[in-house]
Amino acid sequence: MLNGEKQIPRPLRWGMIGGGRLSQVGYKHRSGALRDNTAYQLVASAFDVDAARGRDFGVNLGLDAARCYDNYQQLLEQEAARPDGVEVVSVATPNGTHYEITRAALQAGIHVICEKPLFFTSAEAREIKQLAEQKGLIVGVTYGFSGHPLLMQMRAMIANGELGDIRMVDMQYTHGFSANEAADKFSDAQKWRVDPKIAGPTFVLGDISTHTFYLSQLLLPQQKIAALLCDRQSFIASRAPLEDNAMVLIRYQNGAVGRMWASSINAGAMDSQRIRVIGARASLEWTDSNPGELKYDVQGQPNQTLHHGMPYLHESALADERLGALHTEGLAESWANIYLKFAIAIDAKQRGDEETLSKLVYPDINAGIEGVRWLENCVRSADNHACWVNYE
Amino acid sequence: MLNGEKQIPRPLRWGMIGGGRLSQVGYKHRSGALRDNTAYQLVASAFDVDAARGRDFGVNLGLDAARCYDNYQQLLEQEAARPDGVEVVSVATPNGTHYEITRAALQAGIHVICEKPLFFTSAEAREIKQLAEQKGLIVGVTYGFSGHPLLMQMRAMIANGELGDIRMVDMQYTHGFSANEAADKFSDAQKWRVDPKIAGPTFVLGDISTHTFYLSQLLLPQQKIAALLCDRQSFIASRAPLEDNAMVLIRYQNGAVGRMWASSINAGAMDSQRIRVIGARASLEWTDSNPGELKYDVQGQPNQTLHHGMPYLHESALADERLGALHTEGLAESWANIYLKFAIAIDAKQRGDEETLSKLVYPDINAGIEGVRWLENCVRSADNHACWVNYE
Amino acid sequence: MLNGEKQIPRPLRWGMIGGGRLSQVGYKHRSGALRDNTAYQLVASAFDVDAARGRDFGVNLGLDAARCYDNYQQLLEQEAARPDGVEVVSVATPNGTHYEITRAALQAGIHVICEKPLFFTSAEAREIKQLAEQKGLIVGVTYGFSGHPLLMQMRAMIANGELGDIRMVDMQYTHGFSANEAADKFSDAQKWRVDPKIAGPTFVLGDISTHTFYLSQLLLPQQKIAALLCDRQSFIASRAPLEDNAMVLIRYQNGAVGRMWASSINAGAMDSQRIRVIGARASLEWTDSNPGELKYDVQGQPNQTLHHGMPYLHESALADERLGALHTEGLAESWANIYLKFAIAIDAKQRGDEETLSKLVYPDINAGIEGVRWLENCVRSADNHACWVNYE
Amino acid sequence: MLNGEKQIPRPLRWGMIGGGRLSQVGYKHRSGALRDNTAYQLVASAFDVDAARGRDFGVNLGLDAARCYDNYQQLLEQEAARPDGVEVVSVATPNGTHYEITRAALQAGIHVICEKPLFFTSAEAREIKQLAEQKGLIVGVTYGFSGHPLLMQMRAMIANGELGDIRMVDMQYTHGFSANEAADKFSDAQKWRVDPKIAGPTFVLGDISTHTFYLSQLLLPQQKIAALLCDRQSFIASRAPLEDNAMVLIRYQNGAVGRMWASSINAGAMDSQRIRVIGARASLEWTDSNPGELKYDVQGQPNQTLHHGMPYLHESALADERLGALHTEGLAESWANIYLKFAIAIDAKQRGDEETLSKLVYPDINAGIEGVRWLENCVRSADNHACWVNYE
Repeated sequence: MLNGEKQIPRPLRWGMIGGGRLSQVGYKHRSGALRDNTAYQLVASAFDVDAARGRDFGVNLGLDAARCYDNYQQLLEQEAARPDGVEVVSVATPNGTHYEITRAALQAGIHVICEKPLFFTSAEAREIKQLAEQKGLIVGVTYGFSGHPLLMQMRAMIANGELGDIRMVDMQYTHGFSANEAADKFSDAQKWRVDPKIAGPTFVLGDISTHTFYLSQLLLPQQKIAALLCDRQSFIASRAPLEDNAMVLIRYQNGAVGRMWASSINAGAMDSQRIRVIGARASLEWTDSNPGELKYDVQGQPNQTLHHGMPYLHESALADERLGALHTEGLAESWANIYLKFAIAIDAKQRGDEETLSKLVYPDINAGIEGVRWLENCVRSADNHACWVNYE
Repeated sequence: MLNGEKQIPRPLRWGMIGGGRLSQVGYKHRSGALRDNTAYQLVASAFDVDAARGRDFGVNLGLDAARCYDNYQQLLEQEAARPDGVEVVSVATPNGTHYEITRAALQAGIHVICEKPLFFTSAEAREIKQLAEQKGLIVGVTYGFSGHPLLMQMRAMIANGELGDIRMVDMQYTHGFSANEAADKFSDAQKWRVDPKIAGPTFVLGDISTHTFYLSQLLLPQQKIAALLCDRQSFIASRAPLEDNAMVLIRYQNGAVGRMWASSINAGAMDSQRIRVIGARASLEWTDSNPGELKYDVQGQPNQTLHHGMPYLHESALADERLGALHTEGLAESWANIYLKFAIAIDAKQRGDEETLSKLVYPDINAGIEGVRWLENCVRSADNHACWVNYE
Repeated sequence: MLNGEKQIPRPLRWGMIGGGRLSQVGYKHRSGALRDNTAYQLVASAFDVDAARGRDFGVNLGLDAARCYDNYQQLLEQEAARPDGVEVVSVATPNGTHYEITRAALQAGIHVICEKPLFFTSAEAREIKQLAEQKGLIVGVTYGFSGHPLLMQMRAMIANGELGDIRMVDMQYTHGFSANEAADKFSDAQKWRVDPKIAGPTFVLGDISTHTFYLSQLLLPQQKIAALLCDRQSFIASRAPLEDNAMVLIRYQNGAVGRMWASSINAGAMDSQRIRVIGARASLEWTDSNPGELKYDVQGQPNQTLHHGMPYLHESALADERLGALHTEGLAESWANIYLKFAIAIDAKQRGDEETLSKLVYPDINAGIEGVRWLENCVRSADNHACWVNYE
Repeated sequence: MLNGEKQIPRPLRWGMIGGGRLSQVGYKHRSGALRDNTAYQLVASAFDVDAARGRDFGVNLGLDAARCYDNYQQLLEQEAARPDGVEVVSVATPNGTHYEITRAALQAGIHVICEKPLFFTSAEAREIKQLAEQKGLIVGVTYGFSGHPLLMQMRAMIANGELGDIRMVDMQYTHGFSANEAADKFSDAQKWRVDPKIAGPTFVLGDISTHTFYLSQLLLPQQKIAALLCDRQSFIASRAPLEDNAMVLIRYQNGAVGRMWASSINAGAMDSQRIRVIGARASLEWTDSNPGELKYDVQGQPNQTLHHGMPYLHESALADERLGALHTEGLAESWANIYLKFAIAIDAKQRGDEETLSKLVYPDINAGIEGVRWLENCVRSADNHACWVNYE
């Protein structure tokens, strides 16, 4: 159980690019990274395209004004030149800038923690992976829901064969906040998400399905997709070609099948993300709207509900526990857990500790590549009359 | 609100074919038909392929032994010859016999209430429709879940535009009772369902998805399918070509989309059937495992839960209410409601009251045809590499 | 599993007193008794204080008009005189008439099934018990929720020690349908319930808490009350001295404790009745708003949910099952189950089969006495400044 | 909406007494106080009765070893002497030490944030209140669940009359983690809780019911208790006179009534704390196991569920929001919210800003006094044969 004690020798010097005053996700990065002040110390920022607002915000968070930079280029250049400069930056900017910022940071010798979807193309992602390897640097991807402890429980139960052979994975990440088009015009957060130049080739597939897709990889590391089919729609016509609703069918290499439904037009839905893994003997189901409970349905037995923090859980689930049973954990704990793993990875990388790295389960550059690859295959299918495509 | 008083001048003389001692569904027919003794009177039967067991069972239910026939042919022949012979028979036999029994009954001048899926082919179903029309007889189909009062509430709310334009219909009917193959060998009820000669060209699609598909027709009478795609699997290999899991994507003519998931290998799932209708403004969701509650999710407002029997419901939902708010209704009430509508239809037909018939909402021969058509299109897609097929 | 086959040699000739067209509970009696037409046959009635309306109603249900009597006196007199007269009557009239009707029926040699609360005083109830014994007749009490199959599961699990020593019983039956006083004036069903001359010394305690109290007796036959304390309120002042809200604390003889909350002013509550039994090792919780699920909470283990109709249930729970797993049962099944047990009891009594009677678990005259005794103790406490009273 | 920006000019210098490595609640204090590094800075500690372990822990959290003191006396003495000494300390020690530590800290001129129950007697609490006022210092009490945003929504709705006149408050805080006595012997956290010398005159009443009692004060500031009755039990006999289960009935001055149930022997219960407020028109219900949802039940209308972070909420509920709708908040956010309010209060006190103080809603010394007073009245009743006592 985590209680805030240091897991690495000293906190990493950390900078943020994007995620300023008007950003909702920026606070999740800070809450995650700074949960205990033993993994990260925020020392520099380029929070905002409005440089003055970004500086004011940084100062309000307690930063030295001199290290609240006007833009990411300035940050990287000046911090790289300091002996006490940032060791790692988080990139919480719109999708279209991820690639250039990540590349620049790596070239400046700085580790990167980047928002999803990582980039526009998997070619870019593979190139960045190569660059990171050359530089001996870590790239982490903020699949922010993936740090909930019960996901580790699911992973362990599946690995232990408690479900039997896996037959189906049913995934869903939906909400209704874009059910009408008003937000497309008035919300800064929404505007760029429906602009292909900034968002890339997808809207909801990239914005939300990548989260749930990563969960499936986390839970089922052996499960490989053979083919998929994606049908996507733009119910608000002005969003085309970007989709606000998408339905995907999946065939895995081992004969299992899957579904994904991503939507921002599921009017009134407040339960967002769900994943159900069905085996020959039993199923597991988890939803991020109630992340401290795990449904375990064994065919022919009473249904079970497992609760976070309980001694009957697997060691790996208890390792990420912070508050204890009966004390509700939320999304902030999930972010704190993945940020802690990023820190452990960076520290291990700095120390050349490949053994630690090889055992650490977290959303790394490969998870970022796989997310982009997922999108590429979905779009290829969708744009080809929603036909089946072999997974490339 | 219904309280058992007669809705038609006198109870119909009713016979049952199939649905005997070992049948689970037979009791639902009887519970539905005989709920109040004012719509039907059970007077004859051919309950069982084991004629002696069938007769014993009938006598145990209070039937005259002389009218417990050895088989349906005998029943139809002898009852048709009696002045007080049955006016209507229910057919609760395995799928493969529905067509011949229904045809024979109609030819004998007897109305028919038949299990789903109605027949193997829609050509048969259309032929039977023609025969019924010639004979002036009713054919009803026991989509047994479709009589729950809140479905009428959903239908009314959708018709009134309370959801806005319909964008998506998400359907599901799954359970895990065939997750392993033991039942295929030892359970009479299961054995024939996986034998294509008796079950027809599908297993779970016909056995369960037809129920939920009919619900979508009940709720959205204007919604027409343009194309669909079905991927089906036989996780227990010995069931092939019959599927124990199927995933369908739907494109409606008006631009809406849909999904269906039917499965008997969803290990441990105990919530069976669910339908969510998503409009531009709001969604409605109902599940048969909690049929007295209806979720009404208006985007941007608190989520609502409507309860059966409450005065705020539409007149059509209250018309089918029996027990009143706080008093849980179950599947038996649903069956009672559709059996009552069959009786009203038969009485109206007998009296030549076409006005009543035109207003009555119930699963008639057209609903039966549509169910078979749904299966034909699903199979055509599935057997053609799960490609998109235009809905024929 | 029950499928409608006869459990007694022939259906009992049955009459109803009260429960006519305007009654909500009358339909529950009929649905329960006539579920299968193998336990009862409705042959006579005195449905209504408005004799013409009562007769019209009876005819509408299919009764012979000549046996639709003007009042209960007439019914008892004339039916007792017929060779084919009623063997048993159900009494579904306002509380204040239960005693006189029950006594008259027993004196006429007719078994009685009576609504709760049985009478105004336990002295009356004991007198009636003596009369019934003299006459060799059965008196059953319609605690209508007590026939749900999972209650038998709870009873069996508790008897088997699966909960460990019982420590607490938490009971609740609340709704909000009398939150304002409008209904007191305009609803016939409500008007008499707040009139002490007709309702007796209590409103919600008698009207609803007696149901849940009987459940506690059914589940915990060994648990005896040592003392209780009842605080009751009349939030609508015109109802005083009758309470629309009551809170009871209980001390059992074995050191366990309990609570009861009965209310008709729990605004907006739609989950009515709940009982949680807490033992040293585990707890069981059941609610009548979702009667097919049973929560089984073992301390330190995943929470379990048991579902009706599943093979893992105790034999006694499966014995009362009708529809099977996944097929929702409601209040009507519960009524059918207790009515069937009344019939079995009456038949056994008629045949002098005391062994069957001694094994049958159903709400008999003793359960009726205990219900009235519960009310007397509650009122004695409430009227004595809500002090503790020894249970008498 | 909160995003971590400073709410006071600079972070307060903060020390912790108790709450070290083996403490579960200590991490909640730190997570709450240090959420954003703009309200508090942890600079000193006396974490542990084992001084070496406490120092090691402090260093592991990043503290200067020189300011990791052996005990609270040392901390207060040396910090008070430093120009940069702590301004505020949190007291997370067993109950029996709260009074002496709080008094000593106040005498040293240091603000105090103290665990509940505040002290053993309300006389002590009133004395401390006077001392704090003399010194111009704040005493806050960590009712750690009271910072959930939807509680402010409830408070606003009740104040606006949306429920009508309040009739009943039903409270519950139960779990089963002390269902057996093993933990009494082996768990340090449990051992002192059942020792009256350290825990004070109660176990579960003080340990958990004080939380829910404070919620009732937060939601219903005008509601005053007139009388109460408490029956408490020690199901594990060795705990006597301390109770592991308690049931309280409440009469408020305005005619409303209430209930409280506190228990640590509710075997298998995982939903801990619940409060339902019932008015003449509607009810509100909230549980800390699902703190982002609020049930709003208006009699005669569909039930509503409100979700945290939604624009339809009252301003006061949105003011405490951190993550936004669909992003689950947990107990850590609640602690962060109350710690932030403590900081605002301390800053206002330091600046002599009584206006801010008068408007701020948070668990202050008065809430601490009221908690102890609640316990005194409960114990007085319980120890007097569970009789009614006027609230003193």
